[in-house]
Amino acid sequence: MLLSRSKRLRRTPFTDRVEAAGVKGYTVYNHMLLPTVFDTLEADYRHLKGHVQVWDVACERQVEVKGPDAFRLVQMLTPRSLANLQYGRCLYTPMVDETGGMLNDPVTLKVDEDRYWVSIADSDLLLWVKGIAIGSGLAVDVSEPDVSPLAVQGPKSEELMVRVFGAAVRDIGFFRFERLPFGDTAFIVARSGYSKQGGFEIYLEGGQYGEALWDVLFAAGEDLNVRAGGPNTIERIEGGLLSYGNDMTRENSPFECGLGKFAHLDEAYGCIGRDALLREAVEGPARQIRGVRIDGDPVPACTEAWPVSAGGERAGQVTSAMWSPDLGFNVAIGMVEKSHWEPGTRLEIAAPDGVRGGTVAVLPFTS
Amino acid sequence: MLLSRSKRLRRTPFTDRVEAAGVKGYTVYNHMLLPTVFDTLEADYRHLKGHVQVWDVACERQVEVKGPDAFRLVQMLTPRSLANLQYGRCLYTPMVDETGGMLNDPVTLKVDEDRYWVSIADSDLLLWVKGIAIGSGLAVDVSEPDVSPLAVQGPKSEELMVRVFGAAVRDIGFFRFERLPFGDTAFIVARSGYSKQGGFEIYLEGGQYGEALWDVLFAAGEDLNVRAGGPNTIERIEGGLLSYGNDMTRENSPFECGLGKFAHLDEAYGCIGRDALLREAVEGPARQIRGVRIDGDPVPACTEAWPVSAGGERAGQVTSAMWSPDLGFNVAIGMVEKSHWEPGTRLEIAAPDGVRGGTVAVLPFTS
Repeated sequence: MLLSRSKRLRRTPFTDRVEAAGVKGYTVYNHMLLPTVFDTLEADYRHLKGHVQVWDVACERQVEVKGPDAFRLVQMLTPRSLANLQYGRCLYTPMVDETGGMLNDPVTLKVDEDRYWVSIADSDLLLWVKGIAIGSGLAVDVSEPDVSPLAVQGPKSEELMVRVFGAAVRDIGFFRFERLPFGDTAFIVARSGYSKQGGFEIYLEGGQYGEALWDVLFAAGEDLNVRAGGPNTIERIEGGLLSYGNDMTRENSPFECGLGKFAHLDEAYGCIGRDALLREAVEGPARQIRGVRIDGDPVPACTEAWPVSAGGERAGQVTSAMWSPDLGFNVAIGMVEKSHWEPGTRLEIAAPDGVRGGTVAVLPFTS
Repeated sequence: MLLSRSKRLRRTPFTDRVEAAGVKGYTVYNHMLLPTVFDTLEADYRHLKGHVQVWDVACERQVEVKGPDAFRLVQMLTPRSLANLQYGRCLYTPMVDETGGMLNDPVTLKVDEDRYWVSIADSDLLLWVKGIAIGSGLAVDVSEPDVSPLAVQGPKSEELMVRVFGAAVRDIGFFRFERLPFGDTAFIVARSGYSKQGGFEIYLEGGQYGEALWDVLFAAGEDLNVRAGGPNTIERIEGGLLSYGNDMTRENSPFECGLGKFAHLDEAYGCIGRDALLREAVEGPARQIRGVRIDGDPVPACTEAWPVSAGGERAGQVTSAMWSPDLGFNVAIGMVEKSHWEPGTRLEIAAPDGVRGGTVAVLPFTS
């Protein structure tokens, strides 16, 4: 299916380079182009697991919260305690509405005193944060700065990053960041990213540096077989990485999403949705994210929720599914009712090409 | 360019029918599929101007605001006075943030006592409205109901609508609505839509009725040459219909967008952004939306803002552009600086295939 282009589907500082690299498919994420395929999804997957890729993830827009009430506001947004959100740490911070429904699952960085970046998944969280700030009369500025993350992912990513940013890269711990020099400027560099192959995210500050950064990475990585890539659906399902809008929506609580460990209700006083989550913390969720191994040949594209049942009883839904070449079976992520969520439970999945058997699995998939 | 599909790019109650009708292209709008092309853009345009089309515009999501403070909240969202927002009227309501920057340009309907639908363009306005409501402690519920508009557009649309909904359709005035029966239910039917060819929008309430509605329209319209279509970029630029995200963004005020007539600052007390707009109401905007007639052969796709200058001086940008087969020249919409906005002013437009001459024009284009 063709994507009709317009200015509304925003280009990024890297789009010219992405197109020169032969991008074959896009999705749209935060009103912005996100490259999905360069060769085939399976060839990209194979390369990601063996080498190093550069991903245009500028669509991970930042919501900047700045001002005397910035910390107070950011803590209102998430049930995760931000007591240890210091400069240099990346915190995965589920954000919920007043009913405890997931609005986004961003990573939050304290980038300066009274200044935070919330690196968002696919919803206009800026509008939520601005709305809460204005409604509550808080002393903050909330904006979308000119910051466009570029990810470097894969087993050779550290080697490539050291060549470009120096040996300091090796000392960056997982979900930690440093500000490292690049030419006449400096970028926040974090050990993070939307794959399980290891890697980094460079928070490009100033779109005018985008092509220089891209070119330096490709020049330095030629003998590492560096290629352009993007979040790979096969690899991310194998790895159990959730996708907002696919595997979770406003309908779901953090507990349903398996994110209960980030709900610190005894500490996150004042967070929106706390009352609703307190109830669920006691009662436990009625359904929860699980892996699902689906029998048979490669499944078709999962473009809508596939109903899941067991013995005629409704048991949940599958929300992401792909054939895994490495594992040799179909990997899927779904929301499974409590009655059926034990690993090993047999299920029936109503895929568009017919009903298939399946088995509840633990995430990430291992074999 | 291919669009990579996933559940996150939501299907609509009509998507199966749209695919059966041979859709060739989509865009993504409010995280949902919006069909753009069925034959060619020019053939679709020609057909729209001569016959009647059915458009899946389910992506015009509704933000429902309900409760004792509903009116107060909706008036906070827009500088347009809602004093005459009664049941049966559709009001075009620019919505702005605290700086007066456009967040969306929806149509607002009062559908019941203390219950409003805000029919949105492409931004998650739901999050803004919820944020303001919660931050302000207002007594309202804000939600996205199961409502999916289907548009019937083109010169034969009234004839088709009368066949399906009865003669009452003829009495619906422009930007007015009636609730009309359909089988065992009833839908809000408005004389409105995103074309200048005349037509209606049916607010399908309950996705389960979607295919029945689609099928009845196609069965009743066979001899009217009814076809599936979608908002047509050529026709909407000719007609001067603005597109949020293309022609206006948070960067722009309603005055810049030529929507100053909807800023009733003496009446819309309490509206967010009023202070910022009051200043601009006095000083006037520094730039404003204009038509631009672009010289030469058909322009390439406008996928980013094209810089506009005049004699080496920055004069604005073009944000939408297409070749018009009927007019025989390139029609465009852009934001033009005050120094150059008089109709007839000559401009230079930096299109991706080279600099072209152009002329400031009045919207809509007529010749």
